[in-house]
Amino acid sequence: MSQLLDLVGIFVFALSGALMGVRKRLDVVGMMVLAGMTSLGGGVVRDLILNVRPAAFQSVGYVLVPVAATVIVFFWHPHVARVMPAILVLDAAGLGLFCAVGTEKALEYGLSPLHAALLGVVTAVGGGMLRDVLAGEIPTLLYDRQLYAVPAMLGSGAMAVVYSYGLHGWPATLSAAVLAFGLRIAAMRFKWRAPLARGVGE
Amino acid sequence: MSQLLDLVGIFVFALSGALMGVRKRLDVVGMMVLAGMTSLGGGVVRDLILNVRPAAFQSVGYVLVPVAATVIVFFWHPHVARVMPAILVLDAAGLGLFCAVGTEKALEYGLSPLHAALLGVVTAVGGGMLRDVLAGEIPTLLYDRQLYAVPAMLGSGAMAVVYSYGLHGWPATLSAAVLAFGLRIAAMRFKWRAPLARGVGE
Amino acid sequence: MSQLLDLVGIFVFALSGALMGVRKRLDVVGMMVLAGMTSLGGGVVRDLILNVRPAAFQSVGYVLVPVAATVIVFFWHPHVARVMPAILVLDAAGLGLFCAVGTEKALEYGLSPLHAALLGVVTAVGGGMLRDVLAGEIPTLLYDRQLYAVPAMLGSGAMAVVYSYGLHGWPATLSAAVLAFGLRIAAMRFKWRAPLARGVGE
Repeated sequence: MSQLLDLVGIFVFALSGALMGVRKRLDVVGMMVLAGMTSLGGGVVRDLILNVRPAAFQSVGYVLVPVAATVIVFFWHPHVARVMPAILVLDAAGLGLFCAVGTEKALEYGLSPLHAALLGVVTAVGGGMLRDVLAGEIPTLLYDRQLYAVPAMLGSGAMAVVYSYGLHGWPATLSAAVLAFGLRIAAMRFKWRAPLARGVGE
Repeated sequence: MSQLLDLVGIFVFALSGALMGVRKRLDVVGMMVLAGMTSLGGGVVRDLILNVRPAAFQSVGYVLVPVAATVIVFFWHPHVARVMPAILVLDAAGLGLFCAVGTEKALEYGLSPLHAALLGVVTAVGGGMLRDVLAGEIPTLLYDRQLYAVPAMLGSGAMAVVYSYGLHGWPATLSAAVLAFGLRIAAMRFKWRAPLARGVGE
Repeated sequence: MSQLLDLVGIFVFALSGALMGVRKRLDVVGMMVLAGMTSLGGGVVRDLILNVRPAAFQSVGYVLVPVAATVIVFFWHPHVARVMPAILVLDAAGLGLFCAVGTEKALEYGLSPLHAALLGVVTAVGGGMLRDVLAGEIPTLLYDRQLYAVPAMLGSGAMAVVYSYGLHGWPATLSAAVLAFGLRIAAMRFKWRAPLARGVGE
């Protein structure tokens, strides 16, 4: 169950990476590299910090799903781009899922709730940051002022709190994922924005 | 003692990261990401290479100090910017401390003096490089021709030599840190510059 | 034998990193950082994922070879640049070698053939990607449409297949390296290009 949801998140993030490749007019190799980095990068960094072998290098699905996403975008990208609003929704689902799953894994490996929540955020936003850096852009996360990291922080925090009260298992994980997902959707819909420092001006 | 000095270094590097965020007109999330990367990135890379769980994911202070630095810059950044010359001095202190502490930790984990010194330099300059890459700039270290890495190399090298002669403990660490700090201050004051390759011209 | 070939690969990649530094008008420190990242980055990432201490932090040669390459480029870069066609050939040799050696090491540490081949590609192209990101460029790999990653994929795949049929040892490794090398040379000579997605246009 949790594995399946994880693969859905990977698929959606891989689509966004491959589409960035199309937008940058990269070839199919560039598309695949961006798809792989976006979808697997956050989890690999999480596992390196936990000092375990990254899941992406143990399970076949983690390799095949980004390849499949790249193939789909390669042949049908105008159609994929047309459903982009739907993709933003799926991306929010991936964000929610990755922060919840990442926090849970970190807690299972003995990190404190604070550090586990931090690592959950890293899991959720790390891949997208790698994608943007490789594509030669400042990570959207840093400046577009749509809330992206904040929903992940709150979802990861909720996961850590719930877990430390003894509520384990996929219902808890799914609830935290849904919380982050809902906050992200609301942030997009109502244009919630992170504040600028005083005097920086709009 | 050594822990306290480490946190001072983290605080100063986090200030420089958050200020880069203001200069780039990033929102508070971007400021916090840059502050965290600048202050914790070098140590995380060091610990990954040593194959131990990063200190930043074990100690509460390592998380709270960058947050505090971001809050300070967010509300009072004009004042912080006004004391920037003082901050450059503090940054030099952070550089010295990180190279000495990083080298020492690497020696304790059994690296040879040569490799420990190399890892000390990585610790000292890694966070700033991550900050610059994320902010969309070529790392200052690579081209501004002020000596920045060289003081770290000499401080790390001194630490490794002293340690391999059996002088452990914080007085040795502090001496190496002060050496790197002094060289960095002198490099700024006397505008010592790293040479360009032949024919590249001034 | 395999160690020697590895050092040759490191030397060639370090030359290409240092030359990028000259082209970007970086000082000697910047040249050395790029040389080190290009030549050691891929292997360090591979070893972090395998959860072992990186070879670059255990062997003296891995540190001295990039330093030597930087010194050579610093003093004689016009001559080095003049032999660049030869260097592209050597770079192809480095690519072939790194993908074969990287895949083999991953197989020895128990990865599946699929994941080992993936890690071999990461070893071969990771350093060059780090070089380009640090130098402020989109990694050539992503967009220049010369085949670079594809020969590494085929070489790594061949290594994984041969190994899983029980053929270990340096003749197998060298054969996979030669395959990737030959494909890369042919791709340069015959201008084989990776396809763009439909509608992206030439």
